[in-house]
Amino acid sequence: MSEYRHDPVNGHWVILADNRSDRPDEYIETGWERISEACPFCEGNEGETPPEIARYAPRRGRTWLARVVPNKYPAVAPGARPPIGRPPPLEALEGYGVHEVVIESPRHLVSWSEMPIEGVRLTCRAYQERLAHLRRRGDLVYGVVFKNVGPAAGASIEHVHGQVLATALLPPPIAVRLAHWREGYHEAGRTVVSRWLDDERRDGARVVAETRHFAAVCPFASRVPYEVRIAPLEPMPYYEAIPAGWLGELASLLRDVVRRIERASARAAYNLIIHTAPFDAGPHDHFHWHIEILPRLTRAAGFEWGTGCFINPLLPETAASRLRAPHRTKP
Amino acid sequence: MSEYRHDPVNGHWVILADNRSDRPDEYIETGWERISEACPFCEGNEGETPPEIARYAPRRGRTWLARVVPNKYPAVAPGARPPIGRPPPLEALEGYGVHEVVIESPRHLVSWSEMPIEGVRLTCRAYQERLAHLRRRGDLVYGVVFKNVGPAAGASIEHVHGQVLATALLPPPIAVRLAHWREGYHEAGRTVVSRWLDDERRDGARVVAETRHFAAVCPFASRVPYEVRIAPLEPMPYYEAIPAGWLGELASLLRDVVRRIERASARAAYNLIIHTAPFDAGPHDHFHWHIEILPRLTRAAGFEWGTGCFINPLLPETAASRLRAPHRTKP
Repeated sequence: MSEYRHDPVNGHWVILADNRSDRPDEYIETGWERISEACPFCEGNEGETPPEIARYAPRRGRTWLARVVPNKYPAVAPGARPPIGRPPPLEALEGYGVHEVVIESPRHLVSWSEMPIEGVRLTCRAYQERLAHLRRRGDLVYGVVFKNVGPAAGASIEHVHGQVLATALLPPPIAVRLAHWREGYHEAGRTVVSRWLDDERRDGARVVAETRHFAAVCPFASRVPYEVRIAPLEPMPYYEAIPAGWLGELASLLRDVVRRIERASARAAYNLIIHTAPFDAGPHDHFHWHIEILPRLTRAAGFEWGTGCFINPLLPETAASRLRAPHRTKP
Repeated sequence: MSEYRHDPVNGHWVILADNRSDRPDEYIETGWERISEACPFCEGNEGETPPEIARYAPRRGRTWLARVVPNKYPAVAPGARPPIGRPPPLEALEGYGVHEVVIESPRHLVSWSEMPIEGVRLTCRAYQERLAHLRRRGDLVYGVVFKNVGPAAGASIEHVHGQVLATALLPPPIAVRLAHWREGYHEAGRTVVSRWLDDERRDGARVVAETRHFAAVCPFASRVPYEVRIAPLEPMPYYEAIPAGWLGELASLLRDVVRRIERASARAAYNLIIHTAPFDAGPHDHFHWHIEILPRLTRAAGFEWGTGCFINPLLPETAASRLRAPHRTKP
């Protein structure tokens, strides 16, 4: 028997139907072929990206460990003038915003699982600094960090990288979520994410890992197999405000979780999203920054597109127990 | 320069960024392989499906043109008892509902583009009758019809078919949309879809086809390349209530639009969704049934998953003009 489950954080319902994992599939994906030989993100090819915005260098050795560049094909761009609108009914605004790329390694790696901890830590710091910078500009409303790893997750470039996209408008699903978090915070005096974390930790069945300051959990209402949500144990609105001393711990947890996902499903494509408070003046006490990792092993179909409700064939309890299993190879 | 656009029907914003169609892709999808030899949906293999619920037969000739069967791997199922809930915070309900499959042709076809009009018409009628039946039961809250065509659209079986899924709860994104439609209807005395259709028809740039009772339009804020929304010109809450005399016209328009999409992008995978008023007692004057066709040529990535906001690299004006171009082969 399947189950409808509600996610108290995002507000969605999912259908958990583990009987559907027995469903025969007439198709196998014969995969993707990488047709490119040159890589614009590798060390030595720095001239192939637009001029660098920032660079993160190690104390000695290589000239850089991470680089920030403008996206060469931006979805949004800072125009010469503020956004001009087309009024309703068919409402439009100029695509005002910032779209940057963080090249996360000088070497041609694909996933955080392959990177040294120092590289993941500097990457986490780069995202902090970009978000802080975009927040300070004052002309943008909302910013999000996301990673597409593998072509099935929407990546068009193989070399390990992530993106920062800041917009002049607040996406409506985010606005709905913010209203729900604000209401929950005023009702309970605690963030919705804190209360969810308490419930998950009390139950324990879906907790993947816990460190001093962070927890990684397969949410009760996971939308996809091996979905993981990572959040600080204590509420903090801004990802940018994570103390520098905690970043190594976060980087290590993130790499460990990605490794565990890739062990459970070899070379899994995945999306990773960092949610931080929007750029308005606040207050943002209701916001509890967090990271979502969404492996892309299943394909959203008509039901998901039509209703926004996901059918997930893997129970998060099973997912978490597989992800928790001890590493067989050295860590 | 890209553009943010608002969809007055679904309430979403999209980013239209046609510069991103120039973006090089390191990957090509080497595709999918169909590994199955037998097809459970072909004429002669009727014993491989669960017992038939309904059958649509032509006046003479074949024994059936369409069959309705329970989904062998249902996402939801009618339990022996009414749904029992788990209370918040981690809220759950038994997966009570109905999940059926409509086998749309006795022959091994893949898409409506290949079917005779009579087959598409009977299929459209089968969906009407299934929805009407599920609505009458009184124990279900919401029903949706969807088709997954091609593995990239989530199909696991090649043989042309669709699904009806009725649930014991209203998905929250649908609830948000209904509230918006109700409000819009009370403000203007007309459905939100009617007002959108008027605006699109007045502008004309995105209209793909219009028949006596229906229009097919690439919406102003299309989420994906070649997205098409089809609706009756006059408001009607229930897809089930389309007069029998109009069904041939609708079937013919649907087949024509699918053919045009497949001509613009060979063998495009697509999802098709039929939205009809929910199963509560109503009134549903604010609901205007419609069909969405979402070709799956692009891949939703981290930004879409994180924000619910889509980046579309093809302007709907361009999409509609390509879809409108006269057929070169015989129709």
